[in-house]
Amino acid sequence: MLEELKEKVFQANLDLVKQNLVIFTWGNVSGIDREKGLMVIKPSGVSYDDMKAEDMVVVELATGKVVEGTMNPSSDTPTHIELYKAFPNISGVVHTHSTYATAFAQAGLSIPNIGTTHADYFYKDIPCTRDMVESEMAEYEKETGTVIIDAFKDINPDHTPGVLVKCHGPFSWGTSPANAVYNAKVMEQCAKMAFVSLTLNPDTKMNPLLIEKHYLRKHGPNAYYGQPGQKH
Amino acid sequence: MLEELKEKVFQANLDLVKQNLVIFTWGNVSGIDREKGLMVIKPSGVSYDDMKAEDMVVVELATGKVVEGTMNPSSDTPTHIELYKAFPNISGVVHTHSTYATAFAQAGLSIPNIGTTHADYFYKDIPCTRDMVESEMAEYEKETGTVIIDAFKDINPDHTPGVLVKCHGPFSWGTSPANAVYNAKVMEQCAKMAFVSLTLNPDTKMNPLLIEKHYLRKHGPNAYYGQPGQKH
Amino acid sequence: MLEELKEKVFQANLDLVKQNLVIFTWGNVSGIDREKGLMVIKPSGVSYDDMKAEDMVVVELATGKVVEGTMNPSSDTPTHIELYKAFPNISGVVHTHSTYATAFAQAGLSIPNIGTTHADYFYKDIPCTRDMVESEMAEYEKETGTVIIDAFKDINPDHTPGVLVKCHGPFSWGTSPANAVYNAKVMEQCAKMAFVSLTLNPDTKMNPLLIEKHYLRKHGPNAYYGQPGQKH
Amino acid sequence: MLEELKEKVFQANLDLVKQNLVIFTWGNVSGIDREKGLMVIKPSGVSYDDMKAEDMVVVELATGKVVEGTMNPSSDTPTHIELYKAFPNISGVVHTHSTYATAFAQAGLSIPNIGTTHADYFYKDIPCTRDMVESEMAEYEKETGTVIIDAFKDINPDHTPGVLVKCHGPFSWGTSPANAVYNAKVMEQCAKMAFVSLTLNPDTKMNPLLIEKHYLRKHGPNAYYGQPGQKH
Repeated sequence: MLEELKEKVFQANLDLVKQNLVIFTWGNVSGIDREKGLMVIKPSGVSYDDMKAEDMVVVELATGKVVEGTMNPSSDTPTHIELYKAFPNISGVVHTHSTYATAFAQAGLSIPNIGTTHADYFYKDIPCTRDMVESEMAEYEKETGTVIIDAFKDINPDHTPGVLVKCHGPFSWGTSPANAVYNAKVMEQCAKMAFVSLTLNPDTKMNPLLIEKHYLRKHGPNAYYGQPGQKH
Repeated sequence: MLEELKEKVFQANLDLVKQNLVIFTWGNVSGIDREKGLMVIKPSGVSYDDMKAEDMVVVELATGKVVEGTMNPSSDTPTHIELYKAFPNISGVVHTHSTYATAFAQAGLSIPNIGTTHADYFYKDIPCTRDMVESEMAEYEKETGTVIIDAFKDINPDHTPGVLVKCHGPFSWGTSPANAVYNAKVMEQCAKMAFVSLTLNPDTKMNPLLIEKHYLRKHGPNAYYGQPGQKH
Repeated sequence: MLEELKEKVFQANLDLVKQNLVIFTWGNVSGIDREKGLMVIKPSGVSYDDMKAEDMVVVELATGKVVEGTMNPSSDTPTHIELYKAFPNISGVVHTHSTYATAFAQAGLSIPNIGTTHADYFYKDIPCTRDMVESEMAEYEKETGTVIIDAFKDINPDHTPGVLVKCHGPFSWGTSPANAVYNAKVMEQCAKMAFVSLTLNPDTKMNPLLIEKHYLRKHGPNAYYGQPGQKH
Repeated sequence: MLEELKEKVFQANLDLVKQNLVIFTWGNVSGIDREKGLMVIKPSGVSYDDMKAEDMVVVELATGKVVEGTMNPSSDTPTHIELYKAFPNISGVVHTHSTYATAFAQAGLSIPNIGTTHADYFYKDIPCTRDMVESEMAEYEKETGTVIIDAFKDINPDHTPGVLVKCHGPFSWGTSPANAVYNAKVMEQCAKMAFVSLTLNPDTKMNPLLIEKHYLRKHGPNAYYGQPGQKH
């Protein structure tokens, strides 16, 4: 069942390690088959060294129930489900504790769009969520989805494919599991550079003209970066 | 004698190098057989490249005397002994000079619990010890144990398995030598992220609700992270 | 056509990866044959893993038109062309998003010449360009060349072979594609060290006597660093 | 001539690369045969990849003249000579541009002795030299030795085997070329940790009792770290 998607999700989980975005089991990637209403996700707490493609767990989007797999799915499964439900164009979700993005989340700060590296992939500041309130704690992972969705009331998640959950860490998404990992790496690199920039100059701001220019250079109808037909 | 424990302690010492927690000979791991009252520890000042499992030194917990091994045990042996005596549930102890944890120790600051990465493994701030006084200097390594134990008067060492010795560096412990190394790596990563967070926002604080939630997600009777029967 | 130059440009692009100056496709190197008026440059958006020497694109300097190659040239091609036209002694150009140099660009700050490492290769502060204005946005990559050239009104580009484009990132150049990569690496290392120095001491200044001494030790008629006939 | 010393100096130069203390040709190691009055040093500007043991250059300590070798010795040769003349117990000298030590030199700041890692190897703060004056510039490399020696008027160079040359970078020395490289690595690691500590807490100070204790634990008649007869 969903062998191809399992393989993609498995490879994307291994890419988290290759890209230095996770240590131990501190990350997970999922992918979705929207027609079937099924999500494939990493099992919980399993080492990347031991994991195989067939260990990936299949979960029904509507109910959150495991429909295939012998292991528990990632404990973050309810967050992934909320994101797939709220953001209809996304096909992959990633969660990590990558160093600099997590540090911004711990500081309660958004990653500001102060450079073209950021603007090439994220149209707006990468927002930091509000604090969770006590009534939301009972269903913690589901409500993590809620605070993320709240942060995107005025932001298009397709153009700014990432978020920082306050005091916790980053989530990113994309057009595929691999693309969501790519965006996770970009977010981490932007967070590192923003840390250095803000330490050097706390008041730095980006020319808004550049933000438009760079995002549209790679995205939208007149994109001209890369080769014809190539996606970014 | 204790061949299995020697092998575990030896492997845990090599893991310190793999996890980038030590350079040269700047670290040591021990393990304990509580029934026999014997501790196994790395020899002093020996390179990780040359070391073999049979070089591990066996020390009697009650007296601190070497009962097997041709080399001197780690000069930090008296500190390890004090910790095993004071913290009855621990079965492995680690000391390193890992970069960011040591830097917090040098700054005389605890590593604050400002994120879920920390809260998943350490229930409280990782405390920094008080200054040692002159009368304690004669038995320096033993008294290093004393100042650590003092720091845990109001903290449960099983729930916060690490400490910073002021102006010196981190010690951690756990349910096995390997688990103590795991906690040393988590502490270093939390120290690095806290450094970045505090530089960005010196006043950052964590939502106390999240601290409870995250620690209990992985620990305690209703833990639900990972696979059934798996320990964290 | 230009097989030797294509090979050099190809190798210099791979060197960007080896020197940890790029991730993904975030960099490009070009070289020039000034007699033929032709530039060779990396194709746009192509992975360094898949790229071959024959994929390099040949562009006419006078017109900017592709004269050989089946792929689009780097989207930064118009910037490279402007630099070759304005700086007649350079034979290689590099653009990266290397971490610390990009962070200075995002902070809107020049990399100050505060140490002999910098002074050995860059005679002046590595300047940060002015903001681009709206009328310049239509031909963004060409005008990126303009703001760079503006920054060198009072600076000799042969003695200070690098620049930061504000909110964007570094460009460097040199006597060959390989030398331009070398200068990109020096710039990144100087940016990293300047970040640490300025964080420790925001008012640090270099003894101007040392700037003269170090640059002239490696460059100019009485250079005495290295072996006879060796270039630096 | 001096084949054994050449091999040691050659290996110590390669160790600089393995220890991540140099990039390109930015470092050099020398050793001395005090009985013969001869120093062996790396050739100037030669890549570590291409270098062989027989390329090491033999220089007469009294005159600074090359007595064997076809290549120019390191341009820093006069500095090495001054140090061997002024510090009679040292047998190896190292110069690097390692990142954090160089950043302290650029900031014009000593590396403060704020932790036991530092105190285990360096008894005092690692001093930063005074500015060089114009009259000293003509014989720049020799006078670099002078400003270093000035910094050690009240410091024993055998107990604090390293220095920062202001706006330039670190020199270290030791009981052999390999020991000087070891000290260069310790200095770099202490500089990195001090940077983090000072950023977290600019006023941090070390308990002076600990400085005595730690240095004497590894050095002096009652040293007890390591195995019997082992040097540190």
